[in-house]
Amino acid sequence: MNDYKHVLAAIDFSSSADQVLLKARDIAQRNNAKFSLLHVVEYMPPMDYGSDPMIGNWGVDESEMQEQAKLSLQRISEQHKLENADLNVLLGTPKHEISQFVQDQQCDLVVIGSHGRHGIGLLLGSTANAVLHAMPCDILAVKIEE
Amino acid sequence: MNDYKHVLAAIDFSSSADQVLLKARDIAQRNNAKFSLLHVVEYMPPMDYGSDPMIGNWGVDESEMQEQAKLSLQRISEQHKLENADLNVLLGTPKHEISQFVQDQQCDLVVIGSHGRHGIGLLLGSTANAVLHAMPCDILAVKIEE
Repeated sequence: MNDYKHVLAAIDFSSSADQVLLKARDIAQRNNAKFSLLHVVEYMPPMDYGSDPMIGNWGVDESEMQEQAKLSLQRISEQHKLENADLNVLLGTPKHEISQFVQDQQCDLVVIGSHGRHGIGLLLGSTANAVLHAMPCDILAVKIEE
Repeated sequence: MNDYKHVLAAIDFSSSADQVLLKARDIAQRNNAKFSLLHVVEYMPPMDYGSDPMIGNWGVDESEMQEQAKLSLQRISEQHKLENADLNVLLGTPKHEISQFVQDQQCDLVVIGSHGRHGIGLLLGSTANAVLHAMPCDILAVKIEE
């Protein structure tokens, strides 16, 4: 495409993930670029129910969720023969974690779906301009075929 | 990139226009795709000042603005040797005109700046998801280098 050196696919595990992944993989291959996959496990702040015995421990175990997500990424990676892809699972809000990853890892293209939990709407939120200025690279929003 | 057949660069005439244009041109060339340029002259609804002689005719002449925009597009096109580019000037709101053009002309990739008057913020506005769902193609938001 334009000599991208590090392409990031930010994916959820919805039915649209494959479309994002395959387009990103093709661009990475054509550019001979490093290819990373990122899934963000959305962090749910714990609610304090006190010691109410009727509610008990409803806490979500994020480390368990991260482990599950890693397994899912590995499965997808094997399925699409992405031997050299760098697989990443982070915990937090997709908007923040994706921006931070892009900065830390010096990605120059992030590929996302045009909807879905990791889609551009969520990435942009209501502060589209601010986030786009913060994102230090190109963004390809892939139109998801229903 | 991914066998795009019709690439559209939506440009304003800011200093960022060249970056959008050149990236879009490269993608079109690599894909052997049709290449279109679109500039939208923003329509200002006329205000009725009645017959106040102190104000007179302040009406903006949109057809004159469109002519100027066409000349600017031609100049840019010659400057970057875009002999085969299809040059288009439309009158209206960028958000609506770009979406409509993409649909009418069956573009499969629209390239825009990450800011600027025709940037993604303006394209998305406060209804990011709605517009992205309406846009029937991929969108590449090019990070503008200051």
